[in-house]
Amino acid sequence: MIKLAMALKGIEYEAVPTYPNQTPEYLAIVPTGKVPALQTSDGMLIETNVIFDYLEEVSPQMPLIHGSAYEKARIRELMKMVELYVELPARRCHSEAFFGGKVDDITKSEVKRALLNGMQAISRAASFSPYLAGDKLSAADIFFLYSLDLASGVAKKLYNIDLLAEAPGAQELMRTLNAMPEVKAIAKDKRAAGPAFSAYVAQQMKK
Amino acid sequence: MIKLAMALKGIEYEAVPTYPNQTPEYLAIVPTGKVPALQTSDGMLIETNVIFDYLEEVSPQMPLIHGSAYEKARIRELMKMVELYVELPARRCHSEAFFGGKVDDITKSEVKRALLNGMQAISRAASFSPYLAGDKLSAADIFFLYSLDLASGVAKKLYNIDLLAEAPGAQELMRTLNAMPEVKAIAKDKRAAGPAFSAYVAQQMKK
Repeated sequence: MIKLAMALKGIEYEAVPTYPNQTPEYLAIVPTGKVPALQTSDGMLIETNVIFDYLEEVSPQMPLIHGSAYEKARIRELMKMVELYVELPARRCHSEAFFGGKVDDITKSEVKRALLNGMQAISRAASFSPYLAGDKLSAADIFFLYSLDLASGVAKKLYNIDLLAEAPGAQELMRTLNAMPEVKAIAKDKRAAGPAFSAYVAQQMKK
Repeated sequence: MIKLAMALKGIEYEAVPTYPNQTPEYLAIVPTGKVPALQTSDGMLIETNVIFDYLEEVSPQMPLIHGSAYEKARIRELMKMVELYVELPARRCHSEAFFGGKVDDITKSEVKRALLNGMQAISRAASFSPYLAGDKLSAADIFFLYSLDLASGVAKKLYNIDLLAEAPGAQELMRTLNAMPEVKAIAKDKRAAGPAFSAYVAQQMKK
């Protein structure tokens, strides 16, 4: 998400491949031990939505959280809904959907309900005309693109549900976003980094 | 949280007591069916952190997300950490901690680990000097005050753990915040609204 925001804004950066880890060295600079983290000239920043707001303030070109105070709030609302009601529930089932692990039945049933409710809430809140917040690409679309990609994988694999079909306009939006050259470039990098990441996760799951 | 922000900023508002509900009428104006929601002259807004950012823009007096772009990001980072790593895990156990319900053992064990890890992450990220982000009250302290209040109740009741003791400086900060007249006024209103809220939750849990 952050790489796409920086590509769209034309911000130069150095990518440092890092996996989530709880080593004292990493925790000393990233208090949660998670990724992503952005090293700025003032210090480290974490949490994707926080980094988006920061980038918006320091690099206002190609705004991604735009419009009036209310319109900006609506974009942040959609970002938050995608994170809380799609990304976070789906993540609880990533180990089974993508890495050969096993998730208990209570969790699976909670996640199914959360994802379906989440897509309904997003349907009510988003305009899909064609973008989530209207006729202009916003940070909410970037959240949607990557969160729905993973959540759709979880829904297909565990419940045989087409999650995108739950929100009219969602499939078209995904096609539009995936056709952007910046998105294609990031997808190519991601495919190249895939095997090393899968090997790391498999190793962590053995622990 | 929003009432305290508005009290500190001197924003006049009308409080409309509302419980989370999935009625078609409420879903038509609040897509998640949750609370809080803020009715503005432009339309409805949801999600507490989104409403904080909106209030900050429309009512910059008594700033709660203040300083340079980096300092603002650090405040938002602490807000997010309190929400993701304290508020949301604790909420999964509210029914047993506060409303006589029962939570399964897998959830209880996940929540315990999440709360302890969360407090450690907050200890590493926050300054507690005396406020979370330094010597000035910020939105992060408001998140901390109300999220820790509930999470501490969960930790005490379910695990017999003093969650505040996990982060040096946290107990003193809670005392400082609870001594503020605006916080005392809100606590008084909350106590008055308590019985009606408990009755509503008990009724919902029977369904």
